[in-house]
Amino acid sequence: MAFTVQPAEPQGTPPTDGLLHFPASSALKLEPHLPPVASTDTTTRPDKPFVTLTFATSLDSSLSLAPGVRTTLSGPQSKAMTHYLRSRHAAILVGVGTAVADDPGLNCKIISPFVPEGVREQHPHQPRPIILDPSARWEVNAESKVIQLARLGQGLGPLVFVAKEVRSVPDERRAVVEGVGGKFVRVKSVEGEEFTWTDVLWTIKEEGLDSVMIEGGGSVINSLLSLEQGGEQELVDSVIVTIAPTWLGAGGVLVCPPRAVGKDGQPVPPVRLRDVSWHPLGEDVVLCGKILR
Amino acid sequence: MAFTVQPAEPQGTPPTDGLLHFPASSALKLEPHLPPVASTDTTTRPDKPFVTLTFATSLDSSLSLAPGVRTTLSGPQSKAMTHYLRSRHAAILVGVGTAVADDPGLNCKIISPFVPEGVREQHPHQPRPIILDPSARWEVNAESKVIQLARLGQGLGPLVFVAKEVRSVPDERRAVVEGVGGKFVRVKSVEGEEFTWTDVLWTIKEEGLDSVMIEGGGSVINSLLSLEQGGEQELVDSVIVTIAPTWLGAGGVLVCPPRAVGKDGQPVPPVRLRDVSWHPLGEDVVLCGKILR
Repeated sequence: MAFTVQPAEPQGTPPTDGLLHFPASSALKLEPHLPPVASTDTTTRPDKPFVTLTFATSLDSSLSLAPGVRTTLSGPQSKAMTHYLRSRHAAILVGVGTAVADDPGLNCKIISPFVPEGVREQHPHQPRPIILDPSARWEVNAESKVIQLARLGQGLGPLVFVAKEVRSVPDERRAVVEGVGGKFVRVKSVEGEEFTWTDVLWTIKEEGLDSVMIEGGGSVINSLLSLEQGGEQELVDSVIVTIAPTWLGAGGVLVCPPRAVGKDGQPVPPVRLRDVSWHPLGEDVVLCGKILR
Repeated sequence: MAFTVQPAEPQGTPPTDGLLHFPASSALKLEPHLPPVASTDTTTRPDKPFVTLTFATSLDSSLSLAPGVRTTLSGPQSKAMTHYLRSRHAAILVGVGTAVADDPGLNCKIISPFVPEGVREQHPHQPRPIILDPSARWEVNAESKVIQLARLGQGLGPLVFVAKEVRSVPDERRAVVEGVGGKFVRVKSVEGEEFTWTDVLWTIKEEGLDSVMIEGGGSVINSLLSLEQGGEQELVDSVIVTIAPTWLGAGGVLVCPPRAVGKDGQPVPPVRLRDVSWHPLGEDVVLCGKILR
């Protein structure tokens, strides 16, 4: 199937229907870092989805001013970019800490400028929200934003990954999640407390989801950045970081992987990116790359 | 006096005499963020030099892997940029921690592509090194790099700022520093332990130096970023940060100002930049801006 660029609206004219606008010219720059569009693509792996790790930090690598404090870091163009990325993934994943602290919507408010030839999309593509909640502590209810949006048809019902060891999920939570087309999914865990990324990604693939955008929070990001990876074990396909020209100061929620140590016992950088490109976007900059170890 | 762009060598041809090369096209982008070139400029203040704060960090805001561990973060183009910045300042300042840990050269290995009309510079402009050493703990000697370079005519003798309260500076240190045209300068201090930036900058101006580039280390940078500033009190004129696409991990030397608190007792970002521009440079990005509070 051929794909062409069809700007969703004339360039420079923001949409008036509550949707965000992300210019096709900017979108094109991100394309090399995103999951393949055509389903005939043979570069995807059978055991895991395409994984994009993406987040926004301050210059001092903070995601927010303090745990649980929502912090507007990046500008409107970067927000539109985030929604564009959501339009290009089958799923969007956050940790339970983010679900509890931020009550995020996890939906998409943008119509991709890239649609199959001849087709004109009327509604944004919605990614499937996934919440990693091994010990089932997310008290999801009818007021949770992700549930409200799904009820309005502006998002999908979430998949909540809980550990196999968790005895039971409260009935009212199950009813709320299943009522909007979501479900609780049992995943193998390390003593009911933690998942391995291999198990999480395999489960996502099993659910028929070919790509996932991992958005946060701090624990999820640092855990992915601290994986021993390389070659066949490489789990993250693409890293997209937005940096805002602000320092948030000590006490923030940091993206900072654990220290790594080389053969001589001296500290070495735990993660470097390769195939790097930088894209100024409003007052922010967007860094795209792949993990090099 | 009129100034024109005279590339020091044909574009793309690196110099063969040990000097670095920084293209005039890149230099032009930095010019709006640098001290005025013409001495007739009336925007400079009588009480302080033009101050450029500049440093390179990892994505997790580290200057180095650990205290005292020299860490090559940025690429060759960024190194050339640093030397270009040095060619555009009358002085270059570091804290004693950096002098002790890194034994830095603090000289300039680049001929500015911007020289007065009709003049063809044969040697790089050398900035005057300044070491902030309130309690006189830098054991400068004949082997110190900054002294060796000054002796070779590839740098200037340093000014070492020590507190007025320090009883005496060892004779052998004084001989070494004065032997290469440097000197010890007495500066008012807070109980012999710390200078105020107002005093430091006033002293630099008194020494006839109209611009200073402040390069590090961590304590110096964080102290400048945590100043209560605004309006007449604004001490930093320009901020230039190079970011390398690497995470150094926990335990590094961080650029992270102390937390600030708003009127309602909630944390607020201590520093934001305005008039921001981002310039990809090799694998790194260079952020230029001014401090907004």
